[in-house]
Amino acid sequence: MPQNTARMLETHPNPASVFDLGALAECIDACFGCENVCSSCADACLAEREHLTHLVHCIRLNLDCADVCGATGRVLSRLTQPDRGVVRAQLQACQAACRACGDECERHAREMNMPHCGVCAESCRRCERACEGLLGTMSA
Amino acid sequence: MPQNTARMLETHPNPASVFDLGALAECIDACFGCENVCSSCADACLAEREHLTHLVHCIRLNLDCADVCGATGRVLSRLTQPDRGVVRAQLQACQAACRACGDECERHAREMNMPHCGVCAESCRRCERACEGLLGTMSA
Amino acid sequence: MPQNTARMLETHPNPASVFDLGALAECIDACFGCENVCSSCADACLAEREHLTHLVHCIRLNLDCADVCGATGRVLSRLTQPDRGVVRAQLQACQAACRACGDECERHAREMNMPHCGVCAESCRRCERACEGLLGTMSA
Amino acid sequence: MPQNTARMLETHPNPASVFDLGALAECIDACFGCENVCSSCADACLAEREHLTHLVHCIRLNLDCADVCGATGRVLSRLTQPDRGVVRAQLQACQAACRACGDECERHAREMNMPHCGVCAESCRRCERACEGLLGTMSA
Repeated sequence: MPQNTARMLETHPNPASVFDLGALAECIDACFGCENVCSSCADACLAEREHLTHLVHCIRLNLDCADVCGATGRVLSRLTQPDRGVVRAQLQACQAACRACGDECERHAREMNMPHCGVCAESCRRCERACEGLLGTMSA
Repeated sequence: MPQNTARMLETHPNPASVFDLGALAECIDACFGCENVCSSCADACLAEREHLTHLVHCIRLNLDCADVCGATGRVLSRLTQPDRGVVRAQLQACQAACRACGDECERHAREMNMPHCGVCAESCRRCERACEGLLGTMSA
Repeated sequence: MPQNTARMLETHPNPASVFDLGALAECIDACFGCENVCSSCADACLAEREHLTHLVHCIRLNLDCADVCGATGRVLSRLTQPDRGVVRAQLQACQAACRACGDECERHAREMNMPHCGVCAESCRRCERACEGLLGTMSA
Repeated sequence: MPQNTARMLETHPNPASVFDLGALAECIDACFGCENVCSSCADACLAEREHLTHLVHCIRLNLDCADVCGATGRVLSRLTQPDRGVVRAQLQACQAACRACGDECERHAREMNMPHCGVCAESCRRCERACEGLLGTMSA
């Protein structure tokens, strides 16, 4: 999959100069990966019958993060005449969603020994960093 | 549909005090309405065979706006323990996407006499205002 | 919103003859309305602290139904050169998702006295009927 | 990313016996990968200024396939109490969307020498096969 993302960017007839293509490919992959893992973590938390009431906030943040990451991945997958203001604002929203969800999942991985939250925290951290990285190359 | 949104907020077991429920219902409806209309406008532009090359930027902004509005509507539909930073950042991204798409569609409605872009511009303006309104009640 | 959907279909440069436009507008509105209400019902169920373990299946079906209805609404919002097989299969999936979620929500509205599930059941029934109606006009 | 999907399924507190987990992980990855690549291919086609009118059908199928694959990936990422009828119908819709889009992209890759359509066709074929494979293990 990461390879396919890079191949799509390379074969685009009109690659945008707005983005560093390496940082962009990483961010697209991180976004769709995080949509996947957060949707999965919401469901895994829902199946933690004994701890369910403690996981309500986590499930909520997982669902937000899945939705925000999915929309961000789609916006980023478009190279044609991007609106810099829209891309930047959506990246900032994605960074915020990944940070909030990553913080919560990290805490559950550590304190409640929940391995699915551990995998999800990694996925959120990667996506948070990728958004930050791409924002950095945009403002340059 | 607007009625159903308000009914869902009223029957929620734990309505959040973070939001003004009237402003929230309007914003949720505006978001899902704009996801619908922007997806439709991208397709209508795609069918404007003679003007297609002039509409590429519009189609791109329509698709971004549909994705961003859909994710924003879903985030807003959740009242349980919202993260204010995530909600605020996503509302700002939605405002930016609706402004960019509304500007472009308004221009095509006026200069190219495209009625579907006129309907879409109205839908984007409504959603932009609704996001601004809800952001205003949040920071209060 | 229903009005906007109809206006978009009417102002489309190339309205497809594959669909009855009235049945199509109703189905598009029902799909986006159901994406909204099901996402909201999943969250309301999540806030039912005392009954949460009884609502796990409902939350799961709500989330599926929101995702399937959103995708169906977007596919239907495109009139340009539709693939009949894709549209038909997606309508059947939407009908199945709405039936499963509507059945579960109806039961909770009745047996557990949950008014948000009652609103959601109405929304699912409307969408299930709209998909059935549109499928009927397609095979004609 | 493929590894993360498998890790999420392995760490789920209650892995469903409905699915073969290997076939499920492959199908989830293929769905989110196809959402990504199809969204990207729609944009690359939109940037093919000289051939744009020949690519309208392809763009439409790309957008449908991205939406359908995204919804399917999310439904599949949930292991908790799945409704077999919903999962099966959504997998069939995804198979149809991937077949239609893969056929069109394959033709453009071959006849119009468009490498982005070639990558997209691969991605659609993988997802079509993965849906078929998972459907096979379900009916067993």
